Amino acid sequence: MATLSTKRLFAERGVNMTITVQHVLDKLMEPVNKLPNTVDTLKFGDPNMEVKGIAVTFMATQQVIEQAINLGVNFLITHEGLFYSHMDQTVVEESKVYLEKRRIIEESGIAIYRFHDYIHRYQPDGIMVGLIEALGWKTYVEKNQPTSTIVKIPSMSVREIAEYVKRKLGIEFVRTVGNLEGTCTRIGLLAGYRGGGALSILLFEKEELDLVISGEGPEWETPEFVRDAAYQGKRKALMVLGHAESEAPGMKYLAEWIKTIFPGIPVHFIPEKPIFQVV
Amino acid sequence: MATLSTKRLFAERGVNMTITVQHVLDKLMEPVNKLPNTVDTLKFGDPNMEVKGIAVTFMATQQVIEQAINLGVNFLITHEGLFYSHMDQTVVEESKVYLEKRRIIEESGIAIYRFHDYIHRYQPDGIMVGLIEALGWKTYVEKNQPTSTIVKIPSMSVREIAEYVKRKLGIEFVRTVGNLEGTCTRIGLLAGYRGGGALSILLFEKEELDLVISGEGPEWETPEFVRDAAYQGKRKALMVLGHAESEAPGMKYLAEWIKTIFPGIPVHFIPEKPIFQVV
Repeated sequence: MATLSTKRLFAERGVNMTITVQHVLDKLMEPVNKLPNTVDTLKFGDPNMEVKGIAVTFMATQQVIEQAINLGVNFLITHEGLFYSHMDQTVVEESKVYLEKRRIIEESGIAIYRFHDYIHRYQPDGIMVGLIEALGWKTYVEKNQPTSTIVKIPSMSVREIAEYVKRKLGIEFVRTVGNLEGTCTRIGLLAGYRGGGALSILLFEKEELDLVISGEGPEWETPEFVRDAAYQGKRKALMVLGHAESEAPGMKYLAEWIKTIFPGIPVHFIPEKPIFQVV
Repeated sequence: MATLSTKRLFAERGVNMTITVQHVLDKLMEPVNKLPNTVDTLKFGDPNMEVKGIAVTFMATQQVIEQAINLGVNFLITHEGLFYSHMDQTVVEESKVYLEKRRIIEESGIAIYRFHDYIHRYQPDGIMVGLIEALGWKTYVEKNQPTSTIVKIPSMSVREIAEYVKRKLGIEFVRTVGNLEGTCTRIGLLAGYRGGGALSILLFEKEELDLVISGEGPEWETPEFVRDAAYQGKRKALMVLGHAESEAPGMKYLAEWIKTIFPGIPVHFIPEKPIFQVV
C-alpha cells in the first residue's frame, strides 16, 4: 500500500528518528481524503508521545490490551471500539466492566487509536485486501467496489468452499444458508456488518452471484432471501463468517504494512479467540 | 389472553357465523391502543374475505406459504415480513425471487397479515409469554418489562441452561459467551433483535444479571461486553438463540390462543427449519 517514495522518505530519515503517535496516524490516514465525521480518533494517550512499539488488533478486548502492555508496546491500533458501541456511546457510565477496563488503560499510559473508517475507504478497502490475501483469492478478483469485492473462482461446492475458508482463516465453523452441494463460481465478499439486505441482496441480483460471503447481518434479511431463492431451485447460497472472522485478516495485513513503513518500531498483531462458543 | 367476556361473546354468536379477516385482525389488535405507525398491515387479500382456516408462522417463507395453501387455509399470520425487510422495503423490485414468491401468493388468493408490533405490545409481550411457556419458566418470572423479562431460576450452570434450553425449544445449538461452568440464577430474556447493547448491556447492569438470553444482536456490542466482564472474573454470560428460535414459540402460543377465540375455524402453526446450518 505504501508508495516507494514514502518508504524511501522514512528510510532516509533513518530508524533512529523519533516517531510519534501523530506520525503513525498521519501515515495511516494519508491514502484517504479527510473525513469530516469519523470514529477514527485517538481514544487514549498523547499524539506527541514517542512510539516504542505498536500492537494491532481487530477488537481491543481487555485481554488484548493487557497483552499489548506485556509486549512492551505503548500504542495499540484497534478496528472496533473499546466500549461495545460503534459510535463510542457508553451505555452505562458507572458499569464496573467499563470502569475496570478504563483503569487498566489509563494506568498503563498506552495510547489507543481506532482505525475503522479510513482503512475501509482505502482503494481497495484495506480490510478486504487482507481478507482476499488470507483466502488466497487475489488472482480471482474481478472487481473491487467500495463495500464489496467480486471474485470468480474455479467451480467448487458451497461445502468445499466452507472447508476451504475455515482452513484458510483458521476458524472452527461458518454458518450457511442454501444447498451445500450447489456449485459456485461468482462470489460476493462483504467484510464486517455488510450482510444486510440493502447491500447483500442488491449484490446478489446485480452481480448474478452464486454465493455471498459476509461477516454479519440481520437474520431476517439476506438469510431469508437466500432460503426462498434456494427453495425456488435458484443457485444462491450464503456463508456468514462472523464479524471478527471477516475483518481480523485485514488488521493482520495492516500490521505487516506498518512494519514496512516504520521498520525501526516493533509491530505485533494480536489475535483474539472467537467471540462465540457453539454449544 | 382472551377475557372471559370476549370468549363468551364469540361462543354466543355460534361457530357458524361468518368470520372475516377483519374480525380476526380486530381481535388480535384489541388488547393494544391503536398504533399510528406500524408494519402490522394486511399485505395480501381482502379484509372482508371469509376466513376458512388460519395458519400462523414466525416467518412466511415461500415453503410456509405453500404449506398453508396445501392445508386449505386462506389466511396466514406471520411475525416477520415477506420480503426480507423489517419495513417492507423491497431492495430489488425486479428480483426473480421476489416475483416468484409474490406470484404464488397472488395466484392462491391467500390473505397474509403481519402481526409484529401489536403482539410485542401486549402486556406482557405476547411473544415473550410464548417463550417463557416453552421454557417452562412461568413460575420463575420476577418481572415483565416492555422489552425484557427477568426470571430467577434455581441455580444452574450456563452449560446446563444451554442443554435445557435446546431441549425445551427443540433446537440444535445455541451460541454462548462467557464461562460455561459459571452458575446463574438471575436471567434476562430478550426475544428477537433485542440483543444489542442499548437494551442488553443496560439490563445486565441495572438488574445485576448472571445471564442474558437473547434472539439476535450485533456481535461487537453485548458479546464483547460479556467477554470483558468474564475476563475480569465477573459472573456474566450470554446465550444467543437465533431470532426465529426466540420468537417462534410466541407465534405457536398465539396459534393456540386463536383456536380458543375462533373455535369454529381450523388453526395451524407452521414451523420452519433453522435458518442456518453450522458447517
